[in-house]
Amino acid sequence: MPRPCGSAAVKLGGSLVTVKDRPYTVRGEALAGASRILAAYWRSGGRRLIVVHGGGSFGHYEVDTLRGELGARDLPAAAAPRIQGAMLRLAARVVEALRGAGLPASLHTTHTICECRECRYTPLLRDLGEGLVPVAYGDAVPCRGGLVIVSGDQLVVEAGLEAGVDCIVFTIDAPGVLDGEGRVIGELGPGDPVPRLGGAAHDVTGGLEAKVEWARRAAAGGARVYITGLGGLLKVLEGGRAGTRIVV
Amino acid sequence: MPRPCGSAAVKLGGSLVTVKDRPYTVRGEALAGASRILAAYWRSGGRRLIVVHGGGSFGHYEVDTLRGELGARDLPAAAAPRIQGAMLRLAARVVEALRGAGLPASLHTTHTICECRECRYTPLLRDLGEGLVPVAYGDAVPCRGGLVIVSGDQLVVEAGLEAGVDCIVFTIDAPGVLDGEGRVIGELGPGDPVPRLGGAAHDVTGGLEAKVEWARRAAAGGARVYITGLGGLLKVLEGGRAGTRIVV
Repeated sequence: MPRPCGSAAVKLGGSLVTVKDRPYTVRGEALAGASRILAAYWRSGGRRLIVVHGGGSFGHYEVDTLRGELGARDLPAAAAPRIQGAMLRLAARVVEALRGAGLPASLHTTHTICECRECRYTPLLRDLGEGLVPVAYGDAVPCRGGLVIVSGDQLVVEAGLEAGVDCIVFTIDAPGVLDGEGRVIGELGPGDPVPRLGGAAHDVTGGLEAKVEWARRAAAGGARVYITGLGGLLKVLEGGRAGTRIVV
Repeated sequence: MPRPCGSAAVKLGGSLVTVKDRPYTVRGEALAGASRILAAYWRSGGRRLIVVHGGGSFGHYEVDTLRGELGARDLPAAAAPRIQGAMLRLAARVVEALRGAGLPASLHTTHTICECRECRYTPLLRDLGEGLVPVAYGDAVPCRGGLVIVSGDQLVVEAGLEAGVDCIVFTIDAPGVLDGEGRVIGELGPGDPVPRLGGAAHDVTGGLEAKVEWARRAAAGGARVYITGLGGLLKVLEGGRAGTRIVV
């Protein structure tokens, strides 16, 4: 008998909510669909929910463009506001969609939570305690003259574990982690190799390999962890199986 | 010989950057003008600058509307996201204008900085150290089941004093604090009464009286403090006199 997730942290992949190879383009339908699913889950019992989204064709593209312009992989702190500006436009669209579906979504700017890669989740936990749905997102954080990109994957795992949620779910633009033949891998254990994908355009936070690494930390921290497509999201939140379960 | 402000915290009044009695309406020209002035000041010497803005016809109006809908003055925490949503739209416009003028503006969500009325300015100070221009704004913060409105006046004074800036300047939609005959009061001392204004529409943070109270705290904290119109802003930042100086 499946046990529903009493509380959850859900990552909306950048490739899911944006057209990843078309700059600054939101996938409005996918975003609205994800919002409806999350609202249905949340309404079904006053559950605690954290939502995090990725950079997609906003953040990743802006980083790529800046690297080209400046001719350097390491960007200066002065470049952070331009990346933040692109991400804020996407984040505003995401919270609007979540609110449109009826969720009391409360957005937190990443560089306010994080100092370099060290993030502090107190404001998100406070929101949970107040019955709100805190929203965070991957973004550039100035760090000792340079900048770091704090990924949405990091944020969803760390915030989820600190809040003690039952489930941490990564949604991506595929039904799960796929093997060489394009079939969904039902379960990925600690020793299992991560299939190398073609590599999404403009991914500056390590792609699938880094995501699985974060997913494994989430599982090691005690959460039930899935990587799934939008089609599997509600099923997983309700305690069913869909996509790829990450186990330790 | 006037001494320029080596560093400054500037509040852009809600009545200056929005049409305060017309819901959700930005005064684009005033906002662009203010951004150009701040950029000119900032460029003239790598100075440290904090920018804060008010709620105007976004935040104040939303609070008024919610109070009407709910039939209560005290709003529940669940109402915070709607106010935050309105304020985020205004804040995004402000940072876009500041960036358009060439400032590396970095926006911080209020409820991420503040727990009830206690705010933590570490992320803004970090930005200053990185050569960026941190931006904050008045907004709703959930607080023990209810919510509080943290004003931009509070934020600009506390952040400015914590950063140890030379000058804290409040810009408003008038050339300064006016007396009964509409003349600018050049200096407002500790014992001087604050003129009662007609009262701006939709002001939920105490109007001029509260502003002068915060300005006095700023002056007591050691900053040079002015309340002035947009026309006086650059003059004051360059060490001249314009509008109303608040002294203790």
